[in-house]
Amino acid sequence: MAVVKVHGYPLSNDTQRVLACLYEKDVEFEFVNVHLGAGEHKSETFLALNPFGQIPALEQGDLKLFESRAITQYIAQEYSDKGTHLLPVSGSNKTMALVQLWKEVEAHQFEPPSTNLTRGRNTQLREIQKRNNLIAVFLCVLVRFLFTFFGMTTDTAVVEENQGKLDKVLDVYEARLAQSKYLACEKFTLVDLHHLPNVQYLMRTEVKKLFDSRPHVSAWVADITARPAWSKVLDLQKPKQ
Amino acid sequence: MAVVKVHGYPLSNDTQRVLACLYEKDVEFEFVNVHLGAGEHKSETFLALNPFGQIPALEQGDLKLFESRAITQYIAQEYSDKGTHLLPVSGSNKTMALVQLWKEVEAHQFEPPSTNLTRGRNTQLREIQKRNNLIAVFLCVLVRFLFTFFGMTTDTAVVEENQGKLDKVLDVYEARLAQSKYLACEKFTLVDLHHLPNVQYLMRTEVKKLFDSRPHVSAWVADITARPAWSKVLDLQKPKQ
Ligand SMILES: N[C@@H](CCC(=O)N[C@@H](CS)C(=O)NCC(=O)O)C(=O)O
Ligand SMILES: N[C@@H](CCC(=O)N[C@@H](CS)C(=O)NCC(=O)O)C(=O)O
Repeated sequence: MAVVKVHGYPLSNDTQRVLACLYEKDVEFEFVNVHLGAGEHKSETFLALNPFGQIPALEQGDLKLFESRAITQYIAQEYSDKGTHLLPVSGSNKTMALVQLWKEVEAHQFEPPSTNLTRGRNTQLREIQKRNNLIAVFLCVLVRFLFTFFGMTTDTAVVEENQGKLDKVLDVYEARLAQSKYLACEKFTLVDLHHLPNVQYLMRTEVKKLFDSRPHVSAWVADITARPAWSKVLDLQKPKQ
Repeated sequence: MAVVKVHGYPLSNDTQRVLACLYEKDVEFEFVNVHLGAGEHKSETFLALNPFGQIPALEQGDLKLFESRAITQYIAQEYSDKGTHLLPVSGSNKTMALVQLWKEVEAHQFEPPSTNLTRGRNTQLREIQKRNNLIAVFLCVLVRFLFTFFGMTTDTAVVEENQGKLDKVLDVYEARLAQSKYLACEKFTLVDLHHLPNVQYLMRTEVKKLFDSRPHVSAWVADITARPAWSKVLDLQKPKQ
């Protein structure tokens, strides 16, 4: 079988999702570093792999794939016999439907607020809030008033809104994980794997408290982040000796 | 087989996705109207179907599903022999990978800007912009200045940003549809079906121009919105005689 080439960047959440999957499945691959800073993801060569100009992308012979979760699904199916089973082995349609359901929950409920919280889009406002001079305070109050008046939201409100959304998602996860060891079923699947990059990132921020305050969620976080395949992904981020 | 019950609301995009799928597959179902206005989706009974308190939800005997795209995937697989084939019939992993890829594109590239454009979140600002009295103009200019100063964006900028994003997505679709009759392959699949509710909605707004200006995209829109199953979904929105 043609060699698997992954085009990406070790610090990118979406690249990490694919790498975690390849390590779990014990599939050998070649890693091609895409320098986002140099705009390599918008080069003609890269756009031929992914017309949206985003990493990661996968190449295997003629096959060109992108979108991290489509890549993991392909790897899990193509190498179903190798490494960890990331999909139910002889699943009925109903078991598969639950995997599908929780995959959608990750994509539509968990990822939007968690990605908003991982992006640095609110850094600027936070910087401004640190400057405690009178003009800034006055302008902040004025802006807040105008925002309210015009029915718009501030960036702080955006952070709070996303934390609020994540909080509600984690309430559902807590209830689910009290009944089931992993999100889709009793075994680790693609669903749990898809959460790893954002969970790992958020555990280094103040949002960690939302995970820590829920016993089943925090046991799940401890369990999935301790997987050897995930450690290999984290190792790639360390500067080479 | 136990009867399929769909809990939803005929005007909800996500409900329409499921209904379109059931009509394509020619699967009989019972429709349970959920009154969002009365908060029925946050009732204990409904939360037992979907802990996120969102429509649609599907019930079939013991099986309880939610997330519209997980439901369509289940229906397409469970009733693979009935009605339209919405997934490649004897697809190799590579064909399935392309369906998966374009499903992810709909979910992660097409749906975020298009949902933002379908939601009424910017109506308020547009109303304000219509009032052309001096105070409003002055306040608007001031707000804009402060927004820029604080590195924040206005709601108008949000609309423009989403239109810009959708424009880029449709560039990719135009190129793809020049090569392939439908997004994933030469046949209509779940991928195209998942686009229907938002496409139909956007065609009634000023965003229509983004579709109309691209020959392959507009031929695709004309084709998929003309499907008899989709007409049945639209018929449900008409007030009963
Ligand atoms: N939904 C895509 C998202 C990919 C994505 O956003 N990649 C980022 C890096 S983590 C990127 O390439 N950003 C550059 C850009 O969008 O121009 C996936 O899951 O693969
Ligand atoms: N990703 C979900 C989204 C469902 C959704 O947002 N449903 C809306 C109606 S279209 C809803 O129930 N909104 C009420 C709420 O979120 O409280 C799906 O595809 O089913």
